Amino acid sequence: MRAYDIILKKRNGMELSAEDINQLIIGYMSGSVPDYQMAAFVMTVFFQGMSARETSDLTMAIVASGDRVDLSGITGNKVDKHSTGGVGDKTTLVLGPLAAAAGVPVAKMSGRGLGHTGGTIDKLESIPGFNTSLEREIFIQNVNRIGISIGGQTGNLAPADKKLYALRDVTATVDSIPLIASSVMSKKIAAGADAILLDVKIGDGAFMKNISNAVDLAKAMVEIGTHVGKKTIALITDMEQPLGQTVGNALEVREAVQCLMGEGPSDLKELCLVLGSHMVYLGGQARSIDEARSRVERIINNGKAIDKFRELVVNQGGDPSFIDDLSLLPQAAEKHQLTAVEDGYISELKAEQIGIAAMTLGAGRETKDSQIDLSVGIELYKKRGDRVLRGETLAILHVNDAEKANVTKDKVQQAFVITKEPPVARKLVWGQVTAQGVELY
Amino acid sequence: MRAYDIILKKRNGMELSAEDINQLIIGYMSGSVPDYQMAAFVMTVFFQGMSARETSDLTMAIVASGDRVDLSGITGNKVDKHSTGGVGDKTTLVLGPLAAAAGVPVAKMSGRGLGHTGGTIDKLESIPGFNTSLEREIFIQNVNRIGISIGGQTGNLAPADKKLYALRDVTATVDSIPLIASSVMSKKIAAGADAILLDVKIGDGAFMKNISNAVDLAKAMVEIGTHVGKKTIALITDMEQPLGQTVGNALEVREAVQCLMGEGPSDLKELCLVLGSHMVYLGGQARSIDEARSRVERIINNGKAIDKFRELVVNQGGDPSFIDDLSLLPQAAEKHQLTAVEDGYISELKAEQIGIAAMTLGAGRETKDSQIDLSVGIELYKKRGDRVLRGETLAILHVNDAEKANVTKDKVQQAFVITKEPPVARKLVWGQVTAQGVELY
Repeated sequence: MRAYDIILKKRNGMELSAEDINQLIIGYMSGSVPDYQMAAFVMTVFFQGMSARETSDLTMAIVASGDRVDLSGITGNKVDKHSTGGVGDKTTLVLGPLAAAAGVPVAKMSGRGLGHTGGTIDKLESIPGFNTSLEREIFIQNVNRIGISIGGQTGNLAPADKKLYALRDVTATVDSIPLIASSVMSKKIAAGADAILLDVKIGDGAFMKNISNAVDLAKAMVEIGTHVGKKTIALITDMEQPLGQTVGNALEVREAVQCLMGEGPSDLKELCLVLGSHMVYLGGQARSIDEARSRVERIINNGKAIDKFRELVVNQGGDPSFIDDLSLLPQAAEKHQLTAVEDGYISELKAEQIGIAAMTLGAGRETKDSQIDLSVGIELYKKRGDRVLRGETLAILHVNDAEKANVTKDKVQQAFVITKEPPVARKLVWGQVTAQGVELY
Repeated sequence: MRAYDIILKKRNGMELSAEDINQLIIGYMSGSVPDYQMAAFVMTVFFQGMSARETSDLTMAIVASGDRVDLSGITGNKVDKHSTGGVGDKTTLVLGPLAAAAGVPVAKMSGRGLGHTGGTIDKLESIPGFNTSLEREIFIQNVNRIGISIGGQTGNLAPADKKLYALRDVTATVDSIPLIASSVMSKKIAAGADAILLDVKIGDGAFMKNISNAVDLAKAMVEIGTHVGKKTIALITDMEQPLGQTVGNALEVREAVQCLMGEGPSDLKELCLVLGSHMVYLGGQARSIDEARSRVERIINNGKAIDKFRELVVNQGGDPSFIDDLSLLPQAAEKHQLTAVEDGYISELKAEQIGIAAMTLGAGRETKDSQIDLSVGIELYKKRGDRVLRGETLAILHVNDAEKANVTKDKVQQAFVITKEPPVARKLVWGQVTAQGVELY
């Protein structure tokens, strides 16, 4: 079938065959299907949607466009975790050592990416000497030896996703559930995981603003995983305000270390326990989520989690002394304190606005070529629901550039909405989606 | 606003401003809006539609992309007629002289185009010596002197329509009412008419297959005309079977001449009387459609219509002797007769299939570079509803290439469906749409 006929078929509301979808993606990568036909196609998908079967076929067509990482050299169930993205989300830094300490092999390939802060790889570069450029063989040996390795992405994984995403980004077709779901899942499947844990964020700082969209996306991704034989669970978690108390690269490493020691902010800790227990369960190291939960709590409390992190740092060439003295992490030149101008309750702490402010300070990349400043960022002293008195500290900006600090200050101040009455509490975890169905808490 | 934001705005169901639409078309023509963004936009319009105001603004943005013909040098109300296209539609050849003889100035610029047969310009080239390449000044002088001139399109009219149409053609976005309406009307407005008569076809051989789509398209076009101050009427007419008894270039000229003399097939004659009376009314040469109808009937009966045609031919360098001896028109080398294989009634005469057969014989262009053979085509001896006896002639193929004739024969034979019972009669004219509303007969 010609690309024209495939567009027309979808446009007229008919279901595409696996053959149709494969042909389209192969043609797009070879250049025989031009950008303008693919643009018309993705806009059609935006309006007509895709069945679970079509979405799985699209995912596998995208996987087939590039390399697939072979993790068969690693014994055990490799579990990969993916978050749809939010502000202050440093859970990967915590979950890797936590799951590894519980016996789940962690072979994590991470990216840099655009956003409010750098990716996991950027964050890890805050650690003096830490090397994320690992040969595939060394990477696998590491996992077999100490249970964990974190490296930059190698190989040409899902190149069709890169090309499609770049097109969607300029044609107002990013926010289509089958297109988001196939994009996420193609990369996870190409990266070789046996099981996949998805953290679908909702709220102001997330791509999905409401629960029904989040459930739809979670279902679409779990259906793909299930179709292609990967055990997949999606948790829907809150991103109405930033996660934890820090947004920035070195600042988040610091907070992750505290969390691995059982310290630090309670929302981050709780989310890591929930996600961690699901990883342990998916990795076959516990028979139930409850059993897994006790396990990960114990691992944090008895110091095995932070020990595993230390082992990871040393194994990848890093100097672990910062773990005992967090002031050894990169520090910004100046700290600017922001204080409350009235008494009341924090009724909103706008995640998106804080994220953009952190990026403006230099913590994240606005474009692919932006340089990241690892030391800058924002510390949040008050969170949603907290009581606050006039003059109390709301946040501290860590800055290296006075100019940028000035642009950012007001934005951060305005991200805190103070009211006389406390806000209605929001859940941290809203529900979960598995092959068995949707469960909202 | 950036192209991205304009796509998003339409995608989200919001109404675009004239400014948005202008910017998009100007950007598309300058190259700053690439094909892939325009492809996403037209697919969005396919799904979200456009308001009457948006459609008018799009039309005028397309008009503004090129030249506008200045017909102000011609005295009187210039009326242009446009048909959405069908098989055997030779009404332009009849209506030009008919309206001119009734005092309506006819300044007709026609194209060649693709399709089952050539365009009006191709058909006129069947007349020995007839010149359609006229300087703008001569073209206008002709109209002022004898009331009519027919020439090929000159100037760069609505180039944005050409570019957009080429894109729609490969992105499955042709059949969108606001896009069709703005395409048709932009060309008519750029061509300088004061009033516009639209012949919207429905049925097997037409783009619109049912009355409700046809009414929607007619309304969209009449609304545009009304918005931009051009008196516009749309008639909805039947194209379930070919119009008249001939499909082909010289064959259609022959039939048009017969019609101008008050002879020839009754459906063609009736449609020309209906369309002709509307042109005369729109041209201000009658106070009512009924008065206009009597006028055009009289003009045919008293020979003024065919006289005007003769005057046109002579004025544009043609040899008029074919009018008195139609065998002087180009003749094909062979004639193949097709006969009925059973007794019954013609319950269907598939217009589309006859049209494609005529094109295969060489009467029309499959691609821009195809050569047209003016002498070939199909004569239809039986039409829908006719009683037929086994062995009676159904059609005669006029052919120059035995190979092509063989491929075509069966197709033409199968286009005639013979049943025991006569079919339910279909209307020739289904209704009309004016600024006052829709009237179905």
